[in-house]
Amino acid sequence: MASNSFGNIFKVMTWGESHGRAIGAVIDGCPSGLEIGAEDIQAELFFRQGGKPYTTPRKEADVVEILSGVFEGKTTGAPISVIIYNQDKDPSKYSPIQEVLRPGHANFTYLEKYGIFDYRGGGRASGRETACRVAAGAIAKKILRHYGIDFLSYIQQIGEVKAKIPDQVTKTQIWQTPLLCPDVAAALQMETALLSAIEQKDSLGGVIECIFTGLPIGLGDPVYEKLEANLAKAMLSIPACKGVEFGAGFRSSSMKGSEHNDLFHLSPQNTIETQSNHAGGLLGGISTGMPLKFRCAMKPTSSIQISQPSLNLQKQPTLLQMPEGSRHDPCLALRAVAVVEAMAALVIVDAIFMNRSAKL
Amino acid sequence: MASNSFGNIFKVMTWGESHGRAIGAVIDGCPSGLEIGAEDIQAELFFRQGGKPYTTPRKEADVVEILSGVFEGKTTGAPISVIIYNQDKDPSKYSPIQEVLRPGHANFTYLEKYGIFDYRGGGRASGRETACRVAAGAIAKKILRHYGIDFLSYIQQIGEVKAKIPDQVTKTQIWQTPLLCPDVAAALQMETALLSAIEQKDSLGGVIECIFTGLPIGLGDPVYEKLEANLAKAMLSIPACKGVEFGAGFRSSSMKGSEHNDLFHLSPQNTIETQSNHAGGLLGGISTGMPLKFRCAMKPTSSIQISQPSLNLQKQPTLLQMPEGSRHDPCLALRAVAVVEAMAALVIVDAIFMNRSAKL
Amino acid sequence: MASNSFGNIFKVMTWGESHGRAIGAVIDGCPSGLEIGAEDIQAELFFRQGGKPYTTPRKEADVVEILSGVFEGKTTGAPISVIIYNQDKDPSKYSPIQEVLRPGHANFTYLEKYGIFDYRGGGRASGRETACRVAAGAIAKKILRHYGIDFLSYIQQIGEVKAKIPDQVTKTQIWQTPLLCPDVAAALQMETALLSAIEQKDSLGGVIECIFTGLPIGLGDPVYEKLEANLAKAMLSIPACKGVEFGAGFRSSSMKGSEHNDLFHLSPQNTIETQSNHAGGLLGGISTGMPLKFRCAMKPTSSIQISQPSLNLQKQPTLLQMPEGSRHDPCLALRAVAVVEAMAALVIVDAIFMNRSAKL
Amino acid sequence: MASNSFGNIFKVMTWGESHGRAIGAVIDGCPSGLEIGAEDIQAELFFRQGGKPYTTPRKEADVVEILSGVFEGKTTGAPISVIIYNQDKDPSKYSPIQEVLRPGHANFTYLEKYGIFDYRGGGRASGRETACRVAAGAIAKKILRHYGIDFLSYIQQIGEVKAKIPDQVTKTQIWQTPLLCPDVAAALQMETALLSAIEQKDSLGGVIECIFTGLPIGLGDPVYEKLEANLAKAMLSIPACKGVEFGAGFRSSSMKGSEHNDLFHLSPQNTIETQSNHAGGLLGGISTGMPLKFRCAMKPTSSIQISQPSLNLQKQPTLLQMPEGSRHDPCLALRAVAVVEAMAALVIVDAIFMNRSAKL
Repeated sequence: MASNSFGNIFKVMTWGESHGRAIGAVIDGCPSGLEIGAEDIQAELFFRQGGKPYTTPRKEADVVEILSGVFEGKTTGAPISVIIYNQDKDPSKYSPIQEVLRPGHANFTYLEKYGIFDYRGGGRASGRETACRVAAGAIAKKILRHYGIDFLSYIQQIGEVKAKIPDQVTKTQIWQTPLLCPDVAAALQMETALLSAIEQKDSLGGVIECIFTGLPIGLGDPVYEKLEANLAKAMLSIPACKGVEFGAGFRSSSMKGSEHNDLFHLSPQNTIETQSNHAGGLLGGISTGMPLKFRCAMKPTSSIQISQPSLNLQKQPTLLQMPEGSRHDPCLALRAVAVVEAMAALVIVDAIFMNRSAKL
Repeated sequence: MASNSFGNIFKVMTWGESHGRAIGAVIDGCPSGLEIGAEDIQAELFFRQGGKPYTTPRKEADVVEILSGVFEGKTTGAPISVIIYNQDKDPSKYSPIQEVLRPGHANFTYLEKYGIFDYRGGGRASGRETACRVAAGAIAKKILRHYGIDFLSYIQQIGEVKAKIPDQVTKTQIWQTPLLCPDVAAALQMETALLSAIEQKDSLGGVIECIFTGLPIGLGDPVYEKLEANLAKAMLSIPACKGVEFGAGFRSSSMKGSEHNDLFHLSPQNTIETQSNHAGGLLGGISTGMPLKFRCAMKPTSSIQISQPSLNLQKQPTLLQMPEGSRHDPCLALRAVAVVEAMAALVIVDAIFMNRSAKL
Repeated sequence: MASNSFGNIFKVMTWGESHGRAIGAVIDGCPSGLEIGAEDIQAELFFRQGGKPYTTPRKEADVVEILSGVFEGKTTGAPISVIIYNQDKDPSKYSPIQEVLRPGHANFTYLEKYGIFDYRGGGRASGRETACRVAAGAIAKKILRHYGIDFLSYIQQIGEVKAKIPDQVTKTQIWQTPLLCPDVAAALQMETALLSAIEQKDSLGGVIECIFTGLPIGLGDPVYEKLEANLAKAMLSIPACKGVEFGAGFRSSSMKGSEHNDLFHLSPQNTIETQSNHAGGLLGGISTGMPLKFRCAMKPTSSIQISQPSLNLQKQPTLLQMPEGSRHDPCLALRAVAVVEAMAALVIVDAIFMNRSAKL
Repeated sequence: MASNSFGNIFKVMTWGESHGRAIGAVIDGCPSGLEIGAEDIQAELFFRQGGKPYTTPRKEADVVEILSGVFEGKTTGAPISVIIYNQDKDPSKYSPIQEVLRPGHANFTYLEKYGIFDYRGGGRASGRETACRVAAGAIAKKILRHYGIDFLSYIQQIGEVKAKIPDQVTKTQIWQTPLLCPDVAAALQMETALLSAIEQKDSLGGVIECIFTGLPIGLGDPVYEKLEANLAKAMLSIPACKGVEFGAGFRSSSMKGSEHNDLFHLSPQNTIETQSNHAGGLLGGISTGMPLKFRCAMKPTSSIQISQPSLNLQKQPTLLQMPEGSRHDPCLALRAVAVVEAMAALVIVDAIFMNRSAKL
């Protein structure tokens, strides 16, 4: 418990259920003097709806308000409270299934752990919670940009369709398709796969790749606060994420040391860099200054319209049929692109602040 | 910084360099009344040498002493300090390379971050540090066994050789080969691959799989202290680990919801369980009672005897030739099996204690 | 920074400025199954206005709303977000003094630390922030009552008037005067002193005493998380608090060991207790089961209507004259009674949860 | 539990029992590049024996060894492990009283909490534990001096004898008497009082005052990590400490606002400072740059040679007679001077590091 906050110096606490009054986040440890407005956060919330028309038809405007911590357009060093009132929250359609264990869903474990479950739209276990991560991430991203750090996140795989990612990806390439995938040909195939899944009342998984450039050398603290360790925790805290890998990741396991080792050389700017980047920008848990690169595996959405055999709370066999109007993404990975990027931004900002007392 | 401790209620702080006076760990938050002796820890340190003869020939006895926290054979609730004096620590052989950036190694990032690097055998970035994790894990494992939780960890892949893991693995199967791999045929191929790598002065990566059974339902705290989130952090804090995945992991991304969802049914004991376990024993960040299953990708050892072009601290090109007598595993994954298991044990014990105030 | 949260397992984060949109708290780590409603919190906020008519005439209704974490009247284990919108927040009267350093006030240090100060009513440094502590404390108190723990807090001193506190104090005695002082005669003198201070446009300090009964033996964790250590931190985090003492406190320093030692004997219920309670219910940082007793010294309100020589932000001499309509308590200690009690409740609930893994 | 560590960025974990093999501390988060040697720590341990001949006759040399984190005379950023082996640790004399509850002592609460007590010399509850605080504090003090911060601590009161402390105290004045008291006349009276207490087999309490100068403005983080809040926690974590007060402290409660407010003026160096310092160098939880000043109340040593009626573990009445050779200070406050100063140094170093991200 006490598990709804994240970070050390730059810290976020989130709250709110899918179908409650509101959801929100409190961002603590933001330095004073940062120019921030609701519009900055609003833009990121819009990014989270990326992947339209393949994300859920929830109609919410998701209007965010900043309630504290900003004075005359700038942060003051005080905690920043942001709130999004839930507009579209009629929970009545969930009543029929409130007693049914939902395969792949958290209502079983919540019920066992807490003896109670806010069944309305998934309560706290709903993907809606991630809007607060994105809102907090919006502030972290502004800080990163202030320090010259840039980032890119995109879809690398949907179902069985894998994209070919060019060596240099641009934001334009990512936004050219509704699927946030820089490989247009693959994106078309992904759309076909998604339409087919929707037709079959089924869902698909996916893989998200994320690249942060411009990181200073030195972020991350050995031995337990390695940068990849905190990123891994952040990623696996995202609903539906089942794996994370850095640089060559699982492919490293098949490589030889002589292949995997990134050799040092001098850049044209006379700085030390590596020729390849199998390490994904990390050595010994510390950023090398090379691009930080990692991937997240997202499982397919567990809520599907296909009826599934299950049990109810009385341990009796029953059939789970998700109600007609219930809203679920055919592929959570699409919406998660913004979430992955936001969580990584939170981790990196915290790492920057944690790194300020490494040397005397 | 302040990054050498791990855990919340059950907390470990480790210290010591590869070639310093000693290494050690302080385990805080261990309940009183646990029977523990140096021999329990010694056994786990022996496990960490698993994979012989393919692990480094460091001759150390690694004799552990318990300096505090145990009185008349039982823990008292006070912090348990364990120490291992370094016996075989002649650092002179590292002198020739103290000024050379080592590809795939942390001396570059440590130098940039701290302005200083204890080059003797890798200092704090050395794999030797993991002995302290294993020592602390020995205590965690005793607690887990007290609560009826069992665990198994083994090699699933070395280089390009992938084992076929049977549905039910036993400890006997794991220990029947020097490679901690339950698939004897694969183990033989792995040995061949290792001997070839040694001959080529090269190294190999690997994959470790870990299974914990008997977990109560309810471990892990949404939304940022999900059990998999803390396990992921623990795994990515291990040197050379480049990825982690739970249950079907990255394979989930290619699956449909209808395939991936584990359907609930009643066990012969009339308890609720799932028919399959693609989720790896986790739903919504909370343990389901099904086996907890995850895999770690380990990169190949970065220190190899092949000479590699590099730079020195003065940014001049040079050739890195690891000294004759320097000791490096041809495949870190072998020794890491015990480390992965130890870190997971630490996380799970902490999750058990964190779970005690979920309900009123 | 990241300094607006308090507690370990039972954790509170507060936010909001005196004259911003709203103030609020998020309470994380509350067990599921606790019956709680806005009215429980409202009652404690009313208690914080105790001391009327000697507290500020701010007319706010202080209507609290619960936005999350409660479902069908009970907590779910999810974070509980409470919000109080600021009604009476016209900051215009503060404009004339926004550039003047206020003696005894935090605007100097905030300006130096953050380079910016939300001068409207004191921003985050305002006593208004303590309403959130009281709101969070309302939930903690419900938990304490569930465990049979009771509490009493009262005024022991205002200015130079010290009350004679009877051996057994009741809530009726405390509430019989507007000053929350169980000694009626002293309360009358205190009223006179307050009226005189108001007339002189000056302010008074005070001492608050707090007693918690029914604590189980064993709360508090040696050596750095002693119960008194966390209580002391909680108390000194309250604005205007300048000291704290436990049991005989500073008087202990003049005592001999043979006087101060509380001798053990058997209670009529055959339990072990002490004859006296100089220790204030604490031995070795752990609760003894005897009443927990401590006192807080509160300085006089720094904002007074007397004009004071000062400097402005340009380091020029100026005269500080608080605006006519600015609202300041003649004695902060009155309103702080509820705050002290609330903070202690937060600490004790956390200590209860932290104590659940002391023994195997 | 997990309660043996202290601090955030600059963090200390201590371990060890009074009569175990050794005691020690691990200091994590120390920046690299600090020159430190065992002799620096040794000097502070010597200071902790201040007050001779009125401190216990324990003959230990208390030889400290640095086991890690220092390379070629400088810190590396890695955790610094220090160890002190217990030389004089014959616990046999404690056997006769192992079953007796000791008034004013922690064996009752430890037994209730943990079900077990290391009765040898008090185990973890012994004052011996504070040697580790002093050892860690030695490193913190070196960092403080690096930043131009100086400190002074002395005895202000022993029993009923109160010293008159001059406006400006020097280290020479403090060290001119064996009692670390800058008022020579009072020190003589204190010696008389101590000799009388020793003769009566009794003990005395005392008050310690501590002054830190040269602090930058801005240390301490509102609202829960106020500098005085963390100092208060640190002080109340010291065995036998029963109260703490800052600046005018409890005396503030009797003052009027117009008296207590410290007026701002310009110093000869054209910096902003206050004319008086009733606030003790703190406003709104943040350092003002004026001397930080606080006092700790220490209770009399609970272990006395006078026989005391008590109970044994079987709840039977018995007489506690401390064994002949057991060693106890007639006045703990003397030895605690060094401990108070060390703990404050730990807090302030941590506050310096926590303050590095206040502004963008």
